[in-house]
Amino acid sequence: MQKQEHGGDIYSASYRLDFSVSVNPLGLPHSVRQAVVRSTAMLEQYPDTRCRDLRSKVSERFRVPAHWLTFGNGAAELIFAIAHAIRPQCGLLICPCFSEYEKALRSAGCSDIRFYLCPRTEGFRIGEDILDQITEDVDVIYLSNPANPTGILTGRDLMVRILERCRENKVMLVVDECFLEMTREPSDYTMMGYVADNPCLVVLRSFTKTFAMPGLRLGFCVTSNRQLSDRILECVQPWPVSIPAQMAGEAALEETRYLEEARSLIAQELRHLRQSFDRIGINCYDSEANFLFFEGPENLLELCAKKGILIRDCRNYRGLGPGCYRAAVHTRRDNEELCGVLSDIYRLHGHYLTDREAGHY
Amino acid sequence: MQKQEHGGDIYSASYRLDFSVSVNPLGLPHSVRQAVVRSTAMLEQYPDTRCRDLRSKVSERFRVPAHWLTFGNGAAELIFAIAHAIRPQCGLLICPCFSEYEKALRSAGCSDIRFYLCPRTEGFRIGEDILDQITEDVDVIYLSNPANPTGILTGRDLMVRILERCRENKVMLVVDECFLEMTREPSDYTMMGYVADNPCLVVLRSFTKTFAMPGLRLGFCVTSNRQLSDRILECVQPWPVSIPAQMAGEAALEETRYLEEARSLIAQELRHLRQSFDRIGINCYDSEANFLFFEGPENLLELCAKKGILIRDCRNYRGLGPGCYRAAVHTRRDNEELCGVLSDIYRLHGHYLTDREAGHY
Repeated sequence: MQKQEHGGDIYSASYRLDFSVSVNPLGLPHSVRQAVVRSTAMLEQYPDTRCRDLRSKVSERFRVPAHWLTFGNGAAELIFAIAHAIRPQCGLLICPCFSEYEKALRSAGCSDIRFYLCPRTEGFRIGEDILDQITEDVDVIYLSNPANPTGILTGRDLMVRILERCRENKVMLVVDECFLEMTREPSDYTMMGYVADNPCLVVLRSFTKTFAMPGLRLGFCVTSNRQLSDRILECVQPWPVSIPAQMAGEAALEETRYLEEARSLIAQELRHLRQSFDRIGINCYDSEANFLFFEGPENLLELCAKKGILIRDCRNYRGLGPGCYRAAVHTRRDNEELCGVLSDIYRLHGHYLTDREAGHY
Repeated sequence: MQKQEHGGDIYSASYRLDFSVSVNPLGLPHSVRQAVVRSTAMLEQYPDTRCRDLRSKVSERFRVPAHWLTFGNGAAELIFAIAHAIRPQCGLLICPCFSEYEKALRSAGCSDIRFYLCPRTEGFRIGEDILDQITEDVDVIYLSNPANPTGILTGRDLMVRILERCRENKVMLVVDECFLEMTREPSDYTMMGYVADNPCLVVLRSFTKTFAMPGLRLGFCVTSNRQLSDRILECVQPWPVSIPAQMAGEAALEETRYLEEARSLIAQELRHLRQSFDRIGINCYDSEANFLFFEGPENLLELCAKKGILIRDCRNYRGLGPGCYRAAVHTRRDNEELCGVLSDIYRLHGHYLTDREAGHY
């Protein structure tokens, strides 16, 4: 089986259920799909380079001035554009994390990339020792909250202390909140409220995951740093966001009840999955996101694939290794199927448990 | 009226007819629109990062190995990605040209940008003196064939000599053929056949213009230089091309008759427009593309706008200035409306002609 670089590669083989991508388990809202169908009447036009209609709706929804927003072809494009805009000499990554941060830094010529490894012994929580890593020679930090692939949320207090250290040391702090909307209380964790007073802060958001539309590509970032947003715009083409994506984004913002339902479903299913994993004897961590991070035998990807189920093998995340996995939270029926398959695998291959307990994972 | 940075800005005001963007006058093929509607069933998946289905169809259609192709979110994204991949110290642009070449070079940190100005006295044709500009210290050249905004085609002989100079001097030659499919005989001009033997050559193509789908964003480049295509991939996110764009591209490639019809319509309407412009007394150049480049009074944009017609003011192109315009070739009825409006303007403001003849433009 080929090495997975990212989740969602359903194009190399076919699967019955895909737990490798972590998008909203409620799926694409009907209104968003309809918006895309409507957009087909307008494809002969260039997209609005300024995304004006979408911009004013996002501005209203997140209560930030419209000119603080920059839109991209998925948040992934902005991860690269921010790196190209800053051209950092030295970047700090909080690991394990999304591999594109490192790729973006390297592609922007960043020669000194440092890695803070969240300690496994502390359940992959960021420790206060992170503060000592934020020094004058660091130019940029990428930090995902909740973290990906662990799903660990970093509390407001520590986030604010990290931000203060960044401000003192003139470090740009990129907080990736792409999965935050699907946690229980996004407002308790978002750093959006700190953007006004901190030109060293950029908050990244994604429609892709929140509204289950990864096929469309739409994300945005928020910063009060005018110089930075100008530089980001200089580093990308004038029409990064397609008309279908702009119209889908506008429709998605109306879906407030859908989001509430998704949050409560995810919280409930996360609890259910964790209990089932415990029963099976799988060691899993305290994710509060719409995915679960766990340990298992080194060949679990293959064993699941044989049953038509795709999970995310996390061995290529820096700071992790073989035997680390992520599975998205789906709706109950799918989740039970995943648990059934895992349960069978563990029953048949009981020695894995012993291996793990013996500390091999 | 606000300064236009690009054509197609129909979002700042409303127009009856938009001649400022130069896409296929036959409009979006029905089959492509249907493909986008079909794609809405798949938006919950991530796009194939490798665009496999589209790739194999493009490979077949253009008779190039599949691994020579790199796809982007419109050709515009690739213009930037190529610059970021090469990180040139010195770039040479053949002017007037698409403003994004210069923006891309600057954003990649290129400090020495040189401009070869196609002489107006020679009808904006590239002269042989271009060869002397291709020296060892140049890292990259962007050259559009046909040129934009003039529509001038550069012949195969000169192109090959330019390519040879580039090979000798280790210069990367980016040939932008985004408008070539809409000229009479693309096969007489394309450099695609030279890619195999010339790792210093990249050919850029766009679906956006050829199939009138600028709202969707899809382009690709062709190079046999593996190192370069690897670097391009390092500089962009993993999912630049949305599922609707990939599926639209696949459908578009089937539209061979549509393309033939478009070519013959454009050739015929180009002739008709040129005759009408001559009759009105407008000085226009020898465009062979799906747009016409001409001179007129400095306020022609405003005068046309008052009649609900948007043309492209080309004053912001390097090497041009006030009084230069581009108008797309549409179908007969629209073209006649443009000519009617221009004719009225010239009759009412006859003194402009005198101004122009006096050499003020």
